[in-house]
Amino acid sequence: MLNPRGVAVVGASSDLSRIGGQPLRLLTEYGYTGKVYPVNPKHSEIIGLRCYADVAQVPQPCDLAVVALAAQHVPGVIEQCGRAGIPYALVLSAGFSEVGGEGRALQQQLIAAVKKSGVRVVGPNCLGMLNLKDNVRAGFGGTLLLNTLRPGPIAMVTQSGGFGFGVVAISAYYGIGFNYAISTGNEADLTALDWLEAVLESPDIEIVVTFLEGVADGRRLVAIGERALELGKPILAWKVGNTAVGSQAATSHTARMTAGYELYRAAFRHGGFVEVRDIDDVVDNCKAFLGRRLPRGNRVAVITPSGGAGVLIADRCIEHGMTLPPLAEATAAKLRELVAPFATVANPVDITPQGYNDNFASYNALIGEVLGDPGIDQVIARAPRGKAASIWARNFVALVHRQDKPVLINWPTSPDDNPDVIAFLEQNNVPCLVAPGRTVRALAALNEFAQKKRAFEARRYRTVTRVLSRHDIPLPVGKATLGEHASKNVLAAYGVPVTREALVKLEEIDLLTESPLPFPVALKVESPDVAHKTEAGAVRLGVRDLNELKAAAHEIAAAARRYRADARIEGILVQEMAAGLEVIVGAVNDAYFGPVIAFGLGGVFTELLKDVTYRFAPFDVATAEEMIAEIKGARLLTGYRGQPALDAAALADTLARVSCLIADHADRIAEIDINPLFVRSAGQGVVAADALIVTRP
Amino acid sequence: MLNPRGVAVVGASSDLSRIGGQPLRLLTEYGYTGKVYPVNPKHSEIIGLRCYADVAQVPQPCDLAVVALAAQHVPGVIEQCGRAGIPYALVLSAGFSEVGGEGRALQQQLIAAVKKSGVRVVGPNCLGMLNLKDNVRAGFGGTLLLNTLRPGPIAMVTQSGGFGFGVVAISAYYGIGFNYAISTGNEADLTALDWLEAVLESPDIEIVVTFLEGVADGRRLVAIGERALELGKPILAWKVGNTAVGSQAATSHTARMTAGYELYRAAFRHGGFVEVRDIDDVVDNCKAFLGRRLPRGNRVAVITPSGGAGVLIADRCIEHGMTLPPLAEATAAKLRELVAPFATVANPVDITPQGYNDNFASYNALIGEVLGDPGIDQVIARAPRGKAASIWARNFVALVHRQDKPVLINWPTSPDDNPDVIAFLEQNNVPCLVAPGRTVRALAALNEFAQKKRAFEARRYRTVTRVLSRHDIPLPVGKATLGEHASKNVLAAYGVPVTREALVKLEEIDLLTESPLPFPVALKVESPDVAHKTEAGAVRLGVRDLNELKAAAHEIAAAARRYRADARIEGILVQEMAAGLEVIVGAVNDAYFGPVIAFGLGGVFTELLKDVTYRFAPFDVATAEEMIAEIKGARLLTGYRGQPALDAAALADTLARVSCLIADHADRIAEIDINPLFVRSAGQGVVAADALIVTRP
Repeated sequence: MLNPRGVAVVGASSDLSRIGGQPLRLLTEYGYTGKVYPVNPKHSEIIGLRCYADVAQVPQPCDLAVVALAAQHVPGVIEQCGRAGIPYALVLSAGFSEVGGEGRALQQQLIAAVKKSGVRVVGPNCLGMLNLKDNVRAGFGGTLLLNTLRPGPIAMVTQSGGFGFGVVAISAYYGIGFNYAISTGNEADLTALDWLEAVLESPDIEIVVTFLEGVADGRRLVAIGERALELGKPILAWKVGNTAVGSQAATSHTARMTAGYELYRAAFRHGGFVEVRDIDDVVDNCKAFLGRRLPRGNRVAVITPSGGAGVLIADRCIEHGMTLPPLAEATAAKLRELVAPFATVANPVDITPQGYNDNFASYNALIGEVLGDPGIDQVIARAPRGKAASIWARNFVALVHRQDKPVLINWPTSPDDNPDVIAFLEQNNVPCLVAPGRTVRALAALNEFAQKKRAFEARRYRTVTRVLSRHDIPLPVGKATLGEHASKNVLAAYGVPVTREALVKLEEIDLLTESPLPFPVALKVESPDVAHKTEAGAVRLGVRDLNELKAAAHEIAAAARRYRADARIEGILVQEMAAGLEVIVGAVNDAYFGPVIAFGLGGVFTELLKDVTYRFAPFDVATAEEMIAEIKGARLLTGYRGQPALDAAALADTLARVSCLIADHADRIAEIDINPLFVRSAGQGVVAADALIVTRP
Repeated sequence: MLNPRGVAVVGASSDLSRIGGQPLRLLTEYGYTGKVYPVNPKHSEIIGLRCYADVAQVPQPCDLAVVALAAQHVPGVIEQCGRAGIPYALVLSAGFSEVGGEGRALQQQLIAAVKKSGVRVVGPNCLGMLNLKDNVRAGFGGTLLLNTLRPGPIAMVTQSGGFGFGVVAISAYYGIGFNYAISTGNEADLTALDWLEAVLESPDIEIVVTFLEGVADGRRLVAIGERALELGKPILAWKVGNTAVGSQAATSHTARMTAGYELYRAAFRHGGFVEVRDIDDVVDNCKAFLGRRLPRGNRVAVITPSGGAGVLIADRCIEHGMTLPPLAEATAAKLRELVAPFATVANPVDITPQGYNDNFASYNALIGEVLGDPGIDQVIARAPRGKAASIWARNFVALVHRQDKPVLINWPTSPDDNPDVIAFLEQNNVPCLVAPGRTVRALAALNEFAQKKRAFEARRYRTVTRVLSRHDIPLPVGKATLGEHASKNVLAAYGVPVTREALVKLEEIDLLTESPLPFPVALKVESPDVAHKTEAGAVRLGVRDLNELKAAAHEIAAAARRYRADARIEGILVQEMAAGLEVIVGAVNDAYFGPVIAFGLGGVFTELLKDVTYRFAPFDVATAEEMIAEIKGARLLTGYRGQPALDAAALADTLARVSCLIADHADRIAEIDINPLFVRSAGQGVVAADALIVTRP
């Protein structure tokens, strides 16, 4: 489809500025070498091309139909394409699901036509596609007409045609070319995920850029991310519609629900995605990845001829999680011979302006020494400016090509100062960026991708052992909220430690002669109808004797009934008092992403400070350990301020078990909430003090 | 000094590429209309200018000496300038305090020469200064030679000459001109703060940009920020040297200590600064402020011809604290007449591509209606592209000029697509930005400054009442750490509520026949030598009777002696048990910024999550309320999850009191630490449960 031998333009117009005319112009004036077949019964010829009355008459081979008819005619044309042997169609026409009502019905007809005919369809309501490598421009809109667009080993898959093609146009201005760009429109048939998969596998694509409003199959997005790591091709993902206002607009535009942004971010973090948030990120990251080198670690050396820039680049590297280790003593010794007498030999390396009065030969020698330092994985060097820069650049490129560490150039002046030198460096795969902060961000993107690729490879070769095998569990039929005791029974079946407790029927309370558990105990109502027991006043902590127990049990039952008059009370839960660091382990069975585990510290940490991390279930203990390390409050687990270290191993084990539980029973479980799970001192384990499970209808 | 009638170049060189030669070239080839006087006893003439043997022979008026001699000759030349009546000198020479040792001594000699001669000096070790308005280029370095530099109502004050002048050069490429740029070097005499003050008052300056590594007088920086608000001129502040590695490099480069980044940020937040972190921020914010309009509130309407961009611009506005309210019903009704039948009338407004087939007349009509909506303070509109854009732009500018709300244009394509239209818009004070995220950031900068200016004006007209007048307090002489009880006595003198407590001498413990306070009580050691009592094991909570009290008192004393054998034990503090939400109120008397108050939630919130806010002392209750509202955990005070609201009023009162305490006694107090301060339910006040005061030597 991306390189068709012939293209039929259905609804061709002799007015080349109209939607039915623009594709004709684009396919005849930009060097496309295949055949173009206008289809319109009203004409016999348009701009010198024979015009066909209908699709059936179009000569073969014709691999693509570009459809620009009014919406109501489109389903019929797709069926005609099928009969005529045209395998692909690009539907530019609007007026489908994005307008609601009748449009929605038309889109259903279109989907039926796709199924019946076997024709694969892009759109409707899309701007088309570009294959700049082979001069195929099939679509409409002013951006496609630009002569400045250029090919390059990058593909764009966009759910907003106008915006995505705009990014392609702007990137061209900054020297970044795209071989392919596809606007997916309403995705009646082929989706952004289909296209991501396709372009990722394409041998002439090294980087994928995607502009996403929402996808229907989050798990497939996760799988695509893993494949990107496997192939070593980054996907620069620009996700929009993330706030309430944004989502509302995204919905009205794409007629598609948007799942929670946090889950997209989890998918991006997990796989070979680099999240981008502006056009600069696209341009800068493409430049950096086109250097075609990934760092082996996150250790950076910063080398500048002027202190000011070195300081700020150093600051920003640290902020982005990279390190600036001191240079090896052997390297430092060699540097001292090369720099001005009072220059500092540290990292950042600052040679001071006095250092380079030799066409920057000593500057290059210095960069060479630093690149040779085994403790340095990559270099940001600030280019010199002025006349000698071109001599410097030639020697610098030779130097860079003698080894394989990434080197980014921070260009110290404007892009019109020595533009030939910038062009020469970039032609030789040395990325040049003007703004120092952006230079660091681009390097951070390389490091993020490289780190994830390393982790992916480690994960592939480690035996991913499930923490336990599938177990049957007692679950009610249909949608239901389980009481605490019932929820804990399910958790216990998967080996999650729960508080010792006994469920005592309300009518048996007064008959007790001793407590079922040693005092002090906690008392709670057991009821599927009281999800928030504390708010209902249906919890008593620190109950110390039998009389207190009996009185409290009746008070709790009364409180539960005040909270909800028809609450089914299954009994009073008599429970050991538990303590430890409060954490929350949550699981949701997301409509788009399937079973997901959320983990965070208890209370305000999770709810107010959003210090939460997510993973797709099921996962192993090693992944659970990554989750634990990711939250900002992680230090509380390792022995904060002289406190003993807590049992992170037991916590990781429990996270993995919960992930297996929801994954194994995804058809039945909607939500799991363990809040709090208490984490005790190392070796003392964890214990679920309260829990809630909601089942699916 | 910025526009001298004559300039002497001392140490003039006939080699125009040398440091002593470059100023001659710069002052003769770029249109400077004043006199140029080379000074060098070895020459009688350089490039056709008479060369003088020494400064004394230079004709008057000569307002500036540019000094490019070896460091050891500089102090003498400054004295000569004084005798010759030259009021200002710009010392380009390096080899002063930045090299340490002898250089430091030379800088002291230079300072002495300044004092003796009355000559005001910029530098040493600076790159010079630019007055592009009057074609004065006094300095050296390739950037100054660029023909692309352009004047404009902006000034640059930079502590890194190379970097700061680079920013001026790069900004010129993006259409941003600077009237003045000053490299302050080692600041032996005139500092970055002096220059900030000067350029801020200059009538031909509307925006100030500064690149700072550190300032010696943080309070003056704060005052400059207030003046900037008063004048309505933003200072775009780029602070570097903020991480350990960065600071280290900054120190070696500028021979100046750098105070904590957090205090700089507090100064920036307080005053008319907008923090910038990259060249793009400088360029974008300058563009936005050159629109010369400030929003009256933070309500934004986003108007685009394509949904994708609207969604992402909306997302980013919300992220930056702006709001996108729905349009007024009257506005929405008018819009429905203007847009395509199935376009959405909401905010963001998306007219869909079909909407503009009329040279964008209806698009402009729509923007006009939205600008007229009283519920909208400002607009981001995405420009149309293509041939009709120039007609659109003419009508659009007329429309914008008919009202006074800020309008930013997000340019939808590359800068080389319709560059004439961009130029036309910007000449007419309509800022045009390419990347949508950067467009929003620039608008956020306008809003931040406008909001601070509004708050400043409200503050000016409100009666700033001190919460109490100056009180004398009992403080030991010299540097000392006060025990808890002594610290609380000081706090109590300023009306800070403290726990009821009694100090019992160790030898009197066994004689007690009853507790000085009702049980339960807390027991702590009172000792100036045990600052961390809990870690020392010198605290007991929940003591319930007299026997327990006596036993615990002796155990605590023993623990304190184990912790530190020579600890002076002033007694055992018997204290009421207190409870509430834990917060921390800290005060430091910073060497650069003077007395500063820090406030945050207790424990990990402050220490691990850095949820802390700062203000310069003293301040009033209204400012304290701002601090409380600023922390992320603020919701805990207002009644989080059904809990009762806490006594925020008493907390604000205490913050204001502590600010008066450290400000009134700044000559004596180094630090105050109230940790924890318990905040009780509304109306129940606050209470300092532990406190520590350190006095100054």
